[in-house]
Amino acid sequence: MKTRNTGPPETDWMNDLLRRYRLAEPVWVTRPTMPPLEKYTEQLQTIWDVRWLTNNGQFHQEFERRLAAHLDVEYVSLFCNGTIALLVALQALRINEGEVITTPFTFPATTHVLHWNRIRPVFCDIDPVDFNLDPNGIERLIGPDTKAIIPVHVFGTPCKIDAIQAIADRYGLEVIYDAAHAFGVRHNNRPIVRAGDLSVLSFHATKLFSSIEGGAIISRTAAQKQRVDFLKNFGFSDEETVIGPGINGKMNEFQAAFGLLSLDTIDEEIASRRRLTDVYRKGLRGVPGVGIQSDVPGVLHNYGYFPVLIDQEVYGMSRDELYTLLKEFNIFTRKYFYPLCSQFSCYATLPSASAANLPVAERVTKQILCLPLYGTLKEATVQAVCGLFAEFHAGTRR
Amino acid sequence: MKTRNTGPPETDWMNDLLRRYRLAEPVWVTRPTMPPLEKYTEQLQTIWDVRWLTNNGQFHQEFERRLAAHLDVEYVSLFCNGTIALLVALQALRINEGEVITTPFTFPATTHVLHWNRIRPVFCDIDPVDFNLDPNGIERLIGPDTKAIIPVHVFGTPCKIDAIQAIADRYGLEVIYDAAHAFGVRHNNRPIVRAGDLSVLSFHATKLFSSIEGGAIISRTAAQKQRVDFLKNFGFSDEETVIGPGINGKMNEFQAAFGLLSLDTIDEEIASRRRLTDVYRKGLRGVPGVGIQSDVPGVLHNYGYFPVLIDQEVYGMSRDELYTLLKEFNIFTRKYFYPLCSQFSCYATLPSASAANLPVAERVTKQILCLPLYGTLKEATVQAVCGLFAEFHAGTRR
Repeated sequence: MKTRNTGPPETDWMNDLLRRYRLAEPVWVTRPTMPPLEKYTEQLQTIWDVRWLTNNGQFHQEFERRLAAHLDVEYVSLFCNGTIALLVALQALRINEGEVITTPFTFPATTHVLHWNRIRPVFCDIDPVDFNLDPNGIERLIGPDTKAIIPVHVFGTPCKIDAIQAIADRYGLEVIYDAAHAFGVRHNNRPIVRAGDLSVLSFHATKLFSSIEGGAIISRTAAQKQRVDFLKNFGFSDEETVIGPGINGKMNEFQAAFGLLSLDTIDEEIASRRRLTDVYRKGLRGVPGVGIQSDVPGVLHNYGYFPVLIDQEVYGMSRDELYTLLKEFNIFTRKYFYPLCSQFSCYATLPSASAANLPVAERVTKQILCLPLYGTLKEATVQAVCGLFAEFHAGTRR
Repeated sequence: MKTRNTGPPETDWMNDLLRRYRLAEPVWVTRPTMPPLEKYTEQLQTIWDVRWLTNNGQFHQEFERRLAAHLDVEYVSLFCNGTIALLVALQALRINEGEVITTPFTFPATTHVLHWNRIRPVFCDIDPVDFNLDPNGIERLIGPDTKAIIPVHVFGTPCKIDAIQAIADRYGLEVIYDAAHAFGVRHNNRPIVRAGDLSVLSFHATKLFSSIEGGAIISRTAAQKQRVDFLKNFGFSDEETVIGPGINGKMNEFQAAFGLLSLDTIDEEIASRRRLTDVYRKGLRGVPGVGIQSDVPGVLHNYGYFPVLIDQEVYGMSRDELYTLLKEFNIFTRKYFYPLCSQFSCYATLPSASAANLPVAERVTKQILCLPLYGTLKEATVQAVCGLFAEFHAGTRR
């Protein structure tokens, strides 16, 4: 057995922390919400009876209807995943050349779909509070080749949609919102996915709301939805007519059945995450150098993520050191989003990707850390994480 | 009640046929093969226990291993569907500009993925017997911008792979096989998916072998597979590095679990379809104007489809008339492939799309009809279809 007294004080301190805080089981940054298997099996029985596995089956139709009602929108088109939905959203609006202004602080899918549509991304810096595309940075990036703006509602916090729309209207640009994080979010009692020309949701397993993999385009008109639906099914407008080079973006019945059951529990899931978010906020508010987000007035949040910003100078430890150290305690956080899309080798040489143009995003990506958050996470675990954050800070001051 | 004697002889004849041949239940061109629900639910229990829904989970890993063994290949990369697999296959080989020589007699996915990779399709005519890209037509279509050849093993009949490879080698072109129809097919005891630089399979619900939706790329080297695996997961080569604008092409655990169970019954499914194919062949061989395919020496076929060619002059009825008439009898066939990809508005203006350049494909697409074929199809139904084909022909001669 290891004797504590022989080690340096540093080791003693850490051993003491490990003894007090190390979790018996690993806690991951997220955990998929799953319906009871029995209920899912009942849905499967229907699929087995009907023998219709994909291509707009009955669960697909029902899921589109119930999602539209739940999200308070008219036109939902389901997809196999959110990336293919984003890909088709651009194609639906014929945005297939030139430049699109977007944020570097997002998952690579947002930028990659531009490549697939022959578009050059133009990166715009972000707001230091909501981490979203900063509308103040957009106008000086607009040139003769600009076609559209693709903002992202990062961590579900709504973009400044009025400011963005005003710019889009002034310059005649389309706006497609990457709403991958924004399931169910409302602003001034209006669903955020009604903003812009199209919005795109993701239902990936790691998301608040999931259909295993999955995604959707929210259209504003019936004609838009029809075009999207054609394009996600190879461009077929009927059995013998193809209106353009579509793709296979179809969600299958197994995903739709899963998504339908997820709808039954989503309110409960959000309520649980909200309670845990409160625990995090109370627990971390007093820890110097740990920045947390607050609720935005007028916004119905979905509490999909709990991000913090680690200010190394004040906290006494870098985000990367903290991330690595937490693993020792069986706490698995996520550097999300890190690196910036503008830092990936395929985009780093673009003029707009230079660090000098993106000072806020460059700082946030070095400081951001998403902490574990999901409905069944124990409050005691959240308190332990908060306790550790305070202990680490105190330890660095000794 | 309708009295027969008041109608014209034409109507009498048809009423008589309807009385004798009309099926009580509709018979579709295909019917998905599904594992027992109980077995599938057992697999789901594991997914529920592990809570890992996608992103290279344990069923995904097992399915890749078992598929590789079953197909007698080394490197399998699973995809959410065959179209995205084809899209990534081109990207993996950096075929992303210029021209690709391909067949117009295929599902639109084959041509559409060229668009997504910025490639101009160049259509080459097909062989009148195997319906595949005719190697004799390739060379005169090769120009300075040609990058690759994408043949399709139509209805699972192997392309003339040696002739195609010889041309590819002479001109320094890549070859990607669309093997969507060719699951398990072997030629001279070698899996057909080992031909070319990459081969792409589809596991769509309507295919012989299915994982609900799904597909795979068969790579020839470990380096190829690694690149494909990066690209189907957004280009991530590790948690913090993106090597290129990849996409979300991931197969989820629900698909992989389904595919694994489908592997257990695929041999039986092929054996059943083979028996039914024999019944079709015997029943239709004597009917003038109905062209059928024979087994090719040295080929282990998979009997995925039963296509016929309707020669209107000889048979006395056009393919379209026959297709429509069969519906009256509750027999739902498929004009597959019709129209040609070269006839879709998005490709029809290409020089290579002109009908004069594609005489065989233009004829075959007007004559082709795929008849119902799946493992649980009753032999009596096949005999009824054959009987009807003969009756219709006889009727047209009266």
